[in-house]
Amino acid sequence: MTAIQFDSHGVKTFIKEHEYEELKPQLAMAQKLLFEKKGAGSDYTDWVNWASNFDQQELQEIQRLAKKVQQQSKVLVVIGIGGSYLGAKMALDFMKSPWYNDLLEDGQTKIYFAGNNLSAMALQQLLRVIGDQDFSVNVISKSGQTTEAALSFRFFKQALEERYGREGAVDRIIATTDQKKGTLREEADTAGYETLVVPDGIGGRFSVLTAVGLLPMAVAGIDIEKVLAGAAAGEENYRSANFSSNAALQYAASRRILYDKGYTTEILASWEPSLQYFAEWWKQLMGESEGKNLKGIYPSSANYSTDLHSFGQYIQEGRRDLFETVVRVDEVASDLDVPKTPENSDGLAYLEGKTLDQVNQTAADGVAIAHIDGGVPNLAVRIAKQDERTLGELIYFFEMSVAISAYLFGINPFNQPGVEAYKTAMFALLEKPGYESESQLYKERLKNI
Amino acid sequence: MTAIQFDSHGVKTFIKEHEYEELKPQLAMAQKLLFEKKGAGSDYTDWVNWASNFDQQELQEIQRLAKKVQQQSKVLVVIGIGGSYLGAKMALDFMKSPWYNDLLEDGQTKIYFAGNNLSAMALQQLLRVIGDQDFSVNVISKSGQTTEAALSFRFFKQALEERYGREGAVDRIIATTDQKKGTLREEADTAGYETLVVPDGIGGRFSVLTAVGLLPMAVAGIDIEKVLAGAAAGEENYRSANFSSNAALQYAASRRILYDKGYTTEILASWEPSLQYFAEWWKQLMGESEGKNLKGIYPSSANYSTDLHSFGQYIQEGRRDLFETVVRVDEVASDLDVPKTPENSDGLAYLEGKTLDQVNQTAADGVAIAHIDGGVPNLAVRIAKQDERTLGELIYFFEMSVAISAYLFGINPFNQPGVEAYKTAMFALLEKPGYESESQLYKERLKNI
Repeated sequence: MTAIQFDSHGVKTFIKEHEYEELKPQLAMAQKLLFEKKGAGSDYTDWVNWASNFDQQELQEIQRLAKKVQQQSKVLVVIGIGGSYLGAKMALDFMKSPWYNDLLEDGQTKIYFAGNNLSAMALQQLLRVIGDQDFSVNVISKSGQTTEAALSFRFFKQALEERYGREGAVDRIIATTDQKKGTLREEADTAGYETLVVPDGIGGRFSVLTAVGLLPMAVAGIDIEKVLAGAAAGEENYRSANFSSNAALQYAASRRILYDKGYTTEILASWEPSLQYFAEWWKQLMGESEGKNLKGIYPSSANYSTDLHSFGQYIQEGRRDLFETVVRVDEVASDLDVPKTPENSDGLAYLEGKTLDQVNQTAADGVAIAHIDGGVPNLAVRIAKQDERTLGELIYFFEMSVAISAYLFGINPFNQPGVEAYKTAMFALLEKPGYESESQLYKERLKNI
Repeated sequence: MTAIQFDSHGVKTFIKEHEYEELKPQLAMAQKLLFEKKGAGSDYTDWVNWASNFDQQELQEIQRLAKKVQQQSKVLVVIGIGGSYLGAKMALDFMKSPWYNDLLEDGQTKIYFAGNNLSAMALQQLLRVIGDQDFSVNVISKSGQTTEAALSFRFFKQALEERYGREGAVDRIIATTDQKKGTLREEADTAGYETLVVPDGIGGRFSVLTAVGLLPMAVAGIDIEKVLAGAAAGEENYRSANFSSNAALQYAASRRILYDKGYTTEILASWEPSLQYFAEWWKQLMGESEGKNLKGIYPSSANYSTDLHSFGQYIQEGRRDLFETVVRVDEVASDLDVPKTPENSDGLAYLEGKTLDQVNQTAADGVAIAHIDGGVPNLAVRIAKQDERTLGELIYFFEMSVAISAYLFGINPFNQPGVEAYKTAMFALLEKPGYESESQLYKERLKNI
């Protein structure tokens, strides 16, 4: 049983059946590289069978800490950037609500994300939002040296110490970091923080189902065992060599074929605001895995129907190098009947008797047709509902797809060499110890741009 | 005095001086078309001198209604989509905070946006968030027939009537709509709602400085006279024919030259979370104005530094068809010193003595260099600060730039023919009266995709 239906009907006029057929040997090869750990970056493929082998002790430890936070604090501040931020944020929105913090019952714990930017204004405002509510901190960084997270942690540690004293602060910090090494590990061991582990064999953008994503989810009351069970089901479904039953292979193949035809930008779209951050998570997963060696599909996103009244005009009639993948939810958790009015002054009487979700679903159908007619290949990833099991499988589906896809591109899906370029420039300009030789060079450069 | 510094140093290696020189006659022609109302879509160019001619009575009316809402309600629900949503949302974030509703003093009015999607789950959650707080509604739709807004209005009208009775509901509705015609105008006049006007000669994406955007801004306590004064200053600065002093011409020219060299996607980036929705507003302005006739620059956005740890890898090393325009704020409203720690366990001691904003600014400098080195042309729009005057000028700057830019492309900047395509498909599938003949056709189509 799969929780996902991959629907490629909307590319029928763009991709012929034989094209898939001809790509199958390459797909099989990509799978082989991945499963036999012979592809580039194979040290970072532990996510492949992570969920089905999840350590029970680790699970209990996550749940113990989640309970501790829930009992201790009104607010959890999750400090992290990239994969240490987007996975948990996406899961919270998907399972709960973009208004998660506004919809809590008394006694539940709010969750705010920090350390994902360097803005002083944003940090100052967040500190004001938290105000005098009791709070705990989950700082997430494998090395401890990610500038954004480490800096942000300094501020929140200071705030904790001012509020609760040194010992009280230590009791309210959970460090999710490397098991043995790194500055955060050392600090945690010295100070006596609670800790969870960022494993070695899984890169940041694949880490949502490790303690990195699971602790914030558990604090929010998401059943993380079910999420892991969904991902484990994904392992069964998307590791198969059978093209016709393996949606991850179909998706990877469709993307590769479209790219070669000049469809170089992919829009991940959805019709639920609660999936907006799913697209943000996806953009990191795809863009950081594939965008290298001057190639790869550019990851973009759209939120319907809002963006149909924005750059939807471009999607319909702009340059024809776009394709879209729409995540569709077939059964929404809640629904509303279109209200009846005696006057029909707005001309919407024809919608009475329908539910709001029926209108939303029909709009989605209409947009698919309109976009296909406009020359935009349309893929759909259909899920029955937004529940834990589906979330886990969905995560695995996209992770598996991008790994296969990158191997089809001849790219290492698991490194991110380009991220170093900006760090080097930034560290040189900030005169970080060790960057003395670059420092002068970049300062000169800055004068001349 | 301009509030904006346009910085094209980061395209020096991509555009030679003579290329600008050679484009000047076309720029002059585009300006002429716009100012003499001889270009395509010239019926929709009233925004060009709107702010400097702003009707004083209208201004007083907006301020009277803002005060009424402030006195009457804890919550204002702004119902609108596209230009009837993004302008006000962008202004609120820019001038106040993305956490605007969480940072209010007692007695101030929260603002929520609705009617910008068709999601039943989102609407139901929003109704729960509002709960039993007193609320008023500002419904914004020129025709009254925008499906999203009209549907949403039915729900909130129902909620108002249940809470306050028929008359009480009427007293809490402000309709921003056409002056004379349309279903919402008729309903408003019949029922006796307060009303404000969506003018004829200004399209939705250019409407932020009309009552559409100004009422929500005024309710939030933004000084709208200053915003208008900023836009009026923009009129002086960006209507000049002098290329070297007119940043809007420089920006339009840079975009056009880059596009012709294959840089077909533009990323609007910023380093402040409070500018995230500025980019969303910009995406509509640019994408809906330029994305037609199978051409135009694809509008994308990035929030730094968060997205540097996401698809930043792609920006640095993916396909070289990207350029970026970074909105930089030179003086942030608030700042924080990097906290000192005796241990330096995180290795950040080299940042002590700096402010957080200095780190942010230096990171921005470093990223500009890294991206230029990576082959990404880099434009910067620098503002001194996030204040009303700057906001007004910034809005005018981008509006003028895209009008000129679209005329350089030979495109009508002011229509949006592609938006009809999805509406037709949707209305046909929903069996809207008048779409009987299309209905069967689209239902057949749906079966076959």
